[in-house]
Amino acid sequence: MTRRHEPNELKKLLSKACDSVRNEVGVGKVASYIPALARVNPEKFGAAIITVDGETALYGDAQEAFSIQSISKVFSLTLALNKVGDHLWTRVGREPSGNAFNSIVQLEKERGIPRNPLVNAGALAVTDILLQGQSIESCKAQLRGFIHRVSGDPSIHFDEEVARSELETANRNASLAHFMKSFNNIEHSVEDVLQVYCHHCAISMSCEQLARSFLFLSQNGQDPLSREQIVSEQRARRINSIMMLCGHYDASGDFAFRVGLPGKSGVGGGIVVVVPDVATIAVWSPCLNSNGNSHAGSAALEAIARETQWNIL
Amino acid sequence: MTRRHEPNELKKLLSKACDSVRNEVGVGKVASYIPALARVNPEKFGAAIITVDGETALYGDAQEAFSIQSISKVFSLTLALNKVGDHLWTRVGREPSGNAFNSIVQLEKERGIPRNPLVNAGALAVTDILLQGQSIESCKAQLRGFIHRVSGDPSIHFDEEVARSELETANRNASLAHFMKSFNNIEHSVEDVLQVYCHHCAISMSCEQLARSFLFLSQNGQDPLSREQIVSEQRARRINSIMMLCGHYDASGDFAFRVGLPGKSGVGGGIVVVVPDVATIAVWSPCLNSNGNSHAGSAALEAIARETQWNIL
Amino acid sequence: MTRRHEPNELKKLLSKACDSVRNEVGVGKVASYIPALARVNPEKFGAAIITVDGETALYGDAQEAFSIQSISKVFSLTLALNKVGDHLWTRVGREPSGNAFNSIVQLEKERGIPRNPLVNAGALAVTDILLQGQSIESCKAQLRGFIHRVSGDPSIHFDEEVARSELETANRNASLAHFMKSFNNIEHSVEDVLQVYCHHCAISMSCEQLARSFLFLSQNGQDPLSREQIVSEQRARRINSIMMLCGHYDASGDFAFRVGLPGKSGVGGGIVVVVPDVATIAVWSPCLNSNGNSHAGSAALEAIARETQWNIL
Amino acid sequence: MTRRHEPNELKKLLSKACDSVRNEVGVGKVASYIPALARVNPEKFGAAIITVDGETALYGDAQEAFSIQSISKVFSLTLALNKVGDHLWTRVGREPSGNAFNSIVQLEKERGIPRNPLVNAGALAVTDILLQGQSIESCKAQLRGFIHRVSGDPSIHFDEEVARSELETANRNASLAHFMKSFNNIEHSVEDVLQVYCHHCAISMSCEQLARSFLFLSQNGQDPLSREQIVSEQRARRINSIMMLCGHYDASGDFAFRVGLPGKSGVGGGIVVVVPDVATIAVWSPCLNSNGNSHAGSAALEAIARETQWNIL
Repeated sequence: MTRRHEPNELKKLLSKACDSVRNEVGVGKVASYIPALARVNPEKFGAAIITVDGETALYGDAQEAFSIQSISKVFSLTLALNKVGDHLWTRVGREPSGNAFNSIVQLEKERGIPRNPLVNAGALAVTDILLQGQSIESCKAQLRGFIHRVSGDPSIHFDEEVARSELETANRNASLAHFMKSFNNIEHSVEDVLQVYCHHCAISMSCEQLARSFLFLSQNGQDPLSREQIVSEQRARRINSIMMLCGHYDASGDFAFRVGLPGKSGVGGGIVVVVPDVATIAVWSPCLNSNGNSHAGSAALEAIARETQWNIL
Repeated sequence: MTRRHEPNELKKLLSKACDSVRNEVGVGKVASYIPALARVNPEKFGAAIITVDGETALYGDAQEAFSIQSISKVFSLTLALNKVGDHLWTRVGREPSGNAFNSIVQLEKERGIPRNPLVNAGALAVTDILLQGQSIESCKAQLRGFIHRVSGDPSIHFDEEVARSELETANRNASLAHFMKSFNNIEHSVEDVLQVYCHHCAISMSCEQLARSFLFLSQNGQDPLSREQIVSEQRARRINSIMMLCGHYDASGDFAFRVGLPGKSGVGGGIVVVVPDVATIAVWSPCLNSNGNSHAGSAALEAIARETQWNIL
Repeated sequence: MTRRHEPNELKKLLSKACDSVRNEVGVGKVASYIPALARVNPEKFGAAIITVDGETALYGDAQEAFSIQSISKVFSLTLALNKVGDHLWTRVGREPSGNAFNSIVQLEKERGIPRNPLVNAGALAVTDILLQGQSIESCKAQLRGFIHRVSGDPSIHFDEEVARSELETANRNASLAHFMKSFNNIEHSVEDVLQVYCHHCAISMSCEQLARSFLFLSQNGQDPLSREQIVSEQRARRINSIMMLCGHYDASGDFAFRVGLPGKSGVGGGIVVVVPDVATIAVWSPCLNSNGNSHAGSAALEAIARETQWNIL
Repeated sequence: MTRRHEPNELKKLLSKACDSVRNEVGVGKVASYIPALARVNPEKFGAAIITVDGETALYGDAQEAFSIQSISKVFSLTLALNKVGDHLWTRVGREPSGNAFNSIVQLEKERGIPRNPLVNAGALAVTDILLQGQSIESCKAQLRGFIHRVSGDPSIHFDEEVARSELETANRNASLAHFMKSFNNIEHSVEDVLQVYCHHCAISMSCEQLARSFLFLSQNGQDPLSREQIVSEQRARRINSIMMLCGHYDASGDFAFRVGLPGKSGVGGGIVVVVPDVATIAVWSPCLNSNGNSHAGSAALEAIARETQWNIL
């Protein structure tokens, strides 16, 4: 049972939960493969809850923007599903991978079909789908526009320095894309796909903006505040199922075990989760555990889920 | 939101859902690796829903017993967690495997630690834990006793012919167990572990009995009818999380996508799912799809979830 | 014991051996991934033996040029060893791969270090070494010059149409190169490495030219006809050892079993082998078996080895 | 070119080579998985050369018996080939494995067919072939009898303590055998196969005895001293080809690179090599390198090959 809470109570529960894990902030390592991520202050820690009734509770650095990185894969997937529907599943699977986020082993075994849209290979195939019939710039603008729409905030933008750095160190992703292309599972040039992919990863958002922008997934695909139907109810549930099973790379099982809610993490230290019918939660703390998920962020979500008694299982 | 339904409405919804997939019965292949499974009538089809209020809806062959096979892994896991607590997670992981149920590849890479308790290797390690401090007979009796307790039905028993056949064809499982033993992750003799394991798989239960016996997982670990606390609330949720992510071998993602509820399938053609706070559902139809899950059973659960609007995501 | 034969006897033995496998010509499939290879006449069949004394025996289409493809990897390896010496072995292993020629699985397990210089990934790393300190054009000219030197034939050239087609379909190799680059095992741009690599593969040579150009490997690294020392004796033996263990991709064991001599095959249908202290043999027939080696060519070499009693084991 | 040497010269060359690597003795680790191997004196070092003319050169502990372990796989293979001929190759491949000697990963990919007869899985399949139509005792006696015949020494025997210990720690091999049995590639009970296998590994022989017993492989399958034809010439060459490509597990390429001769190593610290048409060499030093091959033994063979100028490549 996922309970609803009074606004004041919600703020208290969020504070209590976050305070209880303050000691975890700074434990782990900031992502260092590009300078723009490496120089983030490791002591940052923010959290935001937004309910389907529009109640908001913030904590710490909840309004400071950070690089959402892989969290953007949920936005790309949503757009691609709205574009090509279930045809998407002929090019990407929907099973957990059992391997690291950037592994190529599975691609060889399964002949160029990535396991799911939330591992890098899968997100590259999704990006290729988004590019159909439009230019790189148009594709980038489409995603940015979508985020403006679901967040209600037109100030959200790409961090061009991050995008540039990502592109310069994109060899592993280039390898995955060329591999899929050799099996005809990438249609556009690898360069174009990487341009779009690296920009998507380079979106800057705060916890508050992230929580707001995922709200449509918490209530039947309809944004409960704007009343706009973003995706069908069935599609919203299915996106949640993919986050539940594949949202944290090879630690998705552990996250479901500890937190029990569908979510998606990024190497920028952000994690966003959906509490169906109730709320969304976003946390941010840059130091990562060995699986590439925010250490303090994971602990905070476990504490928030416990305090709020939000757990769908 | 998972809605509750009036008893009469529930029966209608179950009938409507099951009728809608009758054409799927007989599609696929009956498990044929042992004679006792191979000779099951491929046209069998039953379903049962039991709510936390004790309302029951039955359909077709809902009261005919079949071999529960891997569904028994949930009972073993529950017993082992009650016996050794979180120490169990030093010997078994809780991540989806990304491989077939009987794959040994992952065991080599991860040095004898199975990915989760619901793949064969994991269930063998769980069985080894159950054997600690007791004989084979006592261990078998313990599981049978546990099922009597959660089902409220003392007539449930092992099918000795199935158990014997399983043992005779247990080379793949023997291989997994010896492999783990070479990494000191099996303490007892492989023969003893297989004796217990093959008996657990050979339990015969009907859909009605299965749905009844999983009811404690749908309400905080407490059997809502007997009021007995079987496991703690947290443990119940965690067992559900493992079913959600790993309950259908390498088709767990597809099941979550289609049905959106935690569950466990067996090669006998049974599948049982938990609707947290609301009900349990069990289905049975012997013909399996290429992933080893009941073809018509999966379709029935998808239809039942749709008709009842039971979906936790 | 590898016997020497009189010139006339040698020609008779070659004819007898080749005649005995004429029925095998046309069995299998011509490589079809690029048009220039796909349109080769499948009935072509040639063979050449050149002894360390300069005796030559030719058969069939022995003087018709074909695309040497992977056979060029031996030339690249020789040049790279002469350039950087044993330092090369810090970037490439020397073990059989146990996988297909273009597999990427091993690269992930061994963190970007290819198993040997004769699988594609290894040859790409070797090409990267050759590029150090020189331009693409200079690097291509260097290899062509080396082949002119060891073959004594300045007419040998790149087939530019083949090179262009190879580049257009180089996604799998691009994937391998980007993967290694992500582990810092490729220094130059992937585009530059592929430019050189695809030209090396696109060299056209006849059986007679190939046999002539490998002669330095049959006698202590010294070309027995020009008396030029191409590599040290030890290096010649070591190149032979790598051909013996890795020269036919994942069918190297079978080739050693049947023929018992170090050699290298290419998807153009050519195979060249070294008979230490005695001779070299080159064969060509475009239809390939399932391992990507010339079907009739392999059979011819088995027959030639038997007739000449040349076998080092 | 493999030169012949005068008897006195041979002894001098052997001494010079072995003296040059004395510093390597004791480097590495003695196999410790069973007590009988663990307590061997790590300073032991012996070597023996026997030529096809019967000349013998000994060094150090050349006449002290040690556990030949995997070297016995060559004897088993020879017997099995003489028993079932090329039918053996339907049950075992002849390609290098690209994996550790006891890896099971490949068996899953290739559905129970081991890569070659010199990895553990392959030797277990060969043992199963040897058991056809006879008892465990008869099978053990057959191998012992064969070794008596090729060594000319009826005192060679199984070390029963080693055999017993091997059996007690045979879980990894039991896993491999059960795995193959699940694919019907083991006919007898796993227990019986392991009984024979562990006894074969537990044969005790000295360097001198080993060199003597491999002499038939150095001259066309005929023992040059007894004049007995042990196997056909072709079969002898083919056994040599398998040793050349697969004789040192995942370091076979390195061994061919350094030594250039077909050979087989064992974890007891012994290595035996064949110099076709010329001689056999056996070395022993118990400390192993990271690949499981004798560290000083490998160095000694490299020095002996260099001093004698014996290299078939």
